Amino acid sequence: MEKKIHTREENYSQWYSDIVKGADLAENSAVRGCMVIKPYGYAIWEKMQSVLDKKFKDTGHENAYFPLFIPKSFFSKEASHVKGFAKECAVVTHYRLKNAEDGNIIVDPDAKLEEELIVRPTSETIIWDTYRRWIQSYRDLPVMINQWANVVRWEMRTRLFLRTTEFLWQEGHTAHATKNEAIEETMQMLDVYADFAENWMAIPILKGIKTPAEKFAGAEDTYCVEALMQDGKALQVGTSHFLGQNFPKAFDVKYITKDNKQEYVWASSWGVSTRLVGALIMAHSDDKGLILPPKLAPIQVVIVPIFKNEDQLSLISETANKIKKLLEEKGITVKYDDRVIYKPGWKFAEYELKGIPVRINIGPRDIEQGTVEVARRDLLEKTVYKQTDIEIKIANLLEQIQKNIYQKALTFREDNTYKVDTWEEFKDKIENKGGFILAHWDGTAETEKKIKEETKATIRLIPLNDLQEKGKCVYTGNPSSQRVVFAKAY
Amino acid sequence: MEKKIHTREENYSQWYSDIVKGADLAENSAVRGCMVIKPYGYAIWEKMQSVLDKKFKDTGHENAYFPLFIPKSFFSKEASHVKGFAKECAVVTHYRLKNAEDGNIIVDPDAKLEEELIVRPTSETIIWDTYRRWIQSYRDLPVMINQWANVVRWEMRTRLFLRTTEFLWQEGHTAHATKNEAIEETMQMLDVYADFAENWMAIPILKGIKTPAEKFAGAEDTYCVEALMQDGKALQVGTSHFLGQNFPKAFDVKYITKDNKQEYVWASSWGVSTRLVGALIMAHSDDKGLILPPKLAPIQVVIVPIFKNEDQLSLISETANKIKKLLEEKGITVKYDDRVIYKPGWKFAEYELKGIPVRINIGPRDIEQGTVEVARRDLLEKTVYKQTDIEIKIANLLEQIQKNIYQKALTFREDNTYKVDTWEEFKDKIENKGGFILAHWDGTAETEKKIKEETKATIRLIPLNDLQEKGKCVYTGNPSSQRVVFAKAY
Repeated sequence: MEKKIHTREENYSQWYSDIVKGADLAENSAVRGCMVIKPYGYAIWEKMQSVLDKKFKDTGHENAYFPLFIPKSFFSKEASHVKGFAKECAVVTHYRLKNAEDGNIIVDPDAKLEEELIVRPTSETIIWDTYRRWIQSYRDLPVMINQWANVVRWEMRTRLFLRTTEFLWQEGHTAHATKNEAIEETMQMLDVYADFAENWMAIPILKGIKTPAEKFAGAEDTYCVEALMQDGKALQVGTSHFLGQNFPKAFDVKYITKDNKQEYVWASSWGVSTRLVGALIMAHSDDKGLILPPKLAPIQVVIVPIFKNEDQLSLISETANKIKKLLEEKGITVKYDDRVIYKPGWKFAEYELKGIPVRINIGPRDIEQGTVEVARRDLLEKTVYKQTDIEIKIANLLEQIQKNIYQKALTFREDNTYKVDTWEEFKDKIENKGGFILAHWDGTAETEKKIKEETKATIRLIPLNDLQEKGKCVYTGNPSSQRVVFAKAY
Repeated sequence: MEKKIHTREENYSQWYSDIVKGADLAENSAVRGCMVIKPYGYAIWEKMQSVLDKKFKDTGHENAYFPLFIPKSFFSKEASHVKGFAKECAVVTHYRLKNAEDGNIIVDPDAKLEEELIVRPTSETIIWDTYRRWIQSYRDLPVMINQWANVVRWEMRTRLFLRTTEFLWQEGHTAHATKNEAIEETMQMLDVYADFAENWMAIPILKGIKTPAEKFAGAEDTYCVEALMQDGKALQVGTSHFLGQNFPKAFDVKYITKDNKQEYVWASSWGVSTRLVGALIMAHSDDKGLILPPKLAPIQVVIVPIFKNEDQLSLISETANKIKKLLEEKGITVKYDDRVIYKPGWKFAEYELKGIPVRINIGPRDIEQGTVEVARRDLLEKTVYKQTDIEIKIANLLEQIQKNIYQKALTFREDNTYKVDTWEEFKDKIENKGGFILAHWDGTAETEKKIKEETKATIRLIPLNDLQEKGKCVYTGNPSSQRVVFAKAY
């Protein structure tokens, strides 16, 4: 199994595909734009799910499940929503197949649906239709629900994890009595995503608000968490929407207040998807393969025996299994690879490609001397450890790796964030360097659009809680009160 | 909130709906045949998922994810498979909506798919198309994968949890080098389901094999686990298929053996769905509402304070929170309901309806005397306990309840299982009593069909490992070597 990985410099996009394929994360399926998530890739997603699910529950949310299909008419109820999603909807029109006279299987024309069903691209409409039945009085509020589900957006150009026709995600949908409460919820979930990205994915992020042109179709305000990938492009790793009363009004969801008045409720929605797996790959990996932050690695430590005969192997296995047990008691996930392969280099390359954070090599001399050799995936460095207190040392090492990966990504981002004040420099940076460009913008959709047309850069976000700073729009020279963050984006 | 529950005797089917609705488990959605699974119902499914997922992993399986859509042509590749599913397929034919001239949203006729996509009713075809790429050599075997997913089967008559157009399930799909290994896997997973039904759901089951008429479309042999509901109808609570080489041949999945020959692999698939929630409700509940086995109850213990003023409440809360903590340290899930509602009867009714296994009532006299009142949901009995070692007593009680619920269901099944030797008696039992009928059958599809037409009873299974017993077919009088199990079924 020789797996060629292109270097990032050679061909960044091919490097990404090589890693996804080489590390056995996912592959394209026979269905255009739909991926098969392979066990190792799915295990990373499961880790992400379990961490996020706990965070959602700790912040007062419950899981539920809503239908995959949405009646077409529901979409038309919120005007900007249908405008945003109409062009990428998979539509179910029939409910039966039959045998044609020539023996082929065809769609039964007699089984045409009266109203077409859309495969959900997002669930606001079906959920708000449901909430109308759930919410009558202030006593029924807040409603704080999350759903883990698959969604479909018909994409013409797809890329494993980053942009696929079907993807897995979670979508939170909440209903509140007051505007403030809905905004607080929106911000709370933005913080949950930011915390997850930084402290679990080890990816430094910027938090901010989208411009009207970039916000979610149906939102009043879209907040987001953005990260920088190694090719200088931005990737959104979480989004939280304050929906105002748009969906409550479209679906007539009112409640009786304590003062016995009827009012529309206030809404939020928020989500992250299997795209995060793509972000994780792109943020940290190197030319040897995947690099995973220990907190999300399905296997945190692999033990590889180094042996010349089966007697040596069985001797080593005794120690290896003892160490495995000690680590597992510490809550560390360990694989002991005792396959009888005499050249350990083959195993080393495999685990480097798969991004296992720590590899412990044990050979006959280690047994004699009470040592092990420990290789860190992030730095590709080896150190000899005494076996004493090995579980404490490895636990510490995993923490160090987690921090180091984050720090490396942070340094990269800092090195690739530029304050830019002239249009020449702006174009130069975007074309030749990429990265986050902090520049003044005059606040108009027109300028935003022109900049996008000329450079492909979009406003990723308007930073939150940033210092106000007077300046001039980098494109028009018109006055501006705050820098915004531009980048090319996934 | 007065929630009327019909009695089982009055109207069994209405009783079921009342419980699903009253206990807040699920409801119908705006999409025909698709349900909304509400948080409490979904929490039960999550409990089931976590137990089953662990069992699958412990038996060597990994999770993965395959596309929601299946190209129509894939279905035609396995003849009996398409025959079985063609009549209930949701079909995607278009991938875009647009604005019509009158302003309405319509399906864009220019966005017609070249090949229609079927929303998966089950994933054998798309998965075996994938396995062809994964399997080349005996070294790649076995492949042991499970998927948690939603599936769609277009149902004309639906019922919450029991039969819905969309449902949630898991589907295992495995590939093996030998026939024996595939059969062993099929049986292993049947045992996993049997164990789950009996030891977690507290539902006694029969294990067996389906007749050719009842087997899965595409299987060589379908094994199943069947349970008896309180109305005397059977419900399948797990199914495991030995697929032989049908799908490997249809999708050309061959491997190179150790002797360097090319051979088709051998296959199994197995699954359970949100139907299990329906089974759980029907198997145990009574006319006051849901009864949940403690091992699957999202909330195992609820503590209800009984008070006349807020001073009393705060005094009780101190003890209640102490007890809650002790129980939680034992791994018990506890809710303390300190809402200021002075009539506890309202809360009692709510928790009885929701099937919380144990309710602990604490009043001012309990505080004085160091006692609590403990109410079991299964027997509707109350006992006063000393607070000493309360966590041990409650843990024991939960175990007792789990056993008692099982025992009750077992007694019910035994009381409703009949050995029948004449056609008159057969018809009488099926019409007037229901239950499992053990009767001789001549082994022909024709007789099976006639019995079904005359009585609506089907052969639920041919028991495994049963004593052979010569007899005469209850319908034709032709010779038979073993009794089979008949019942009306969900």
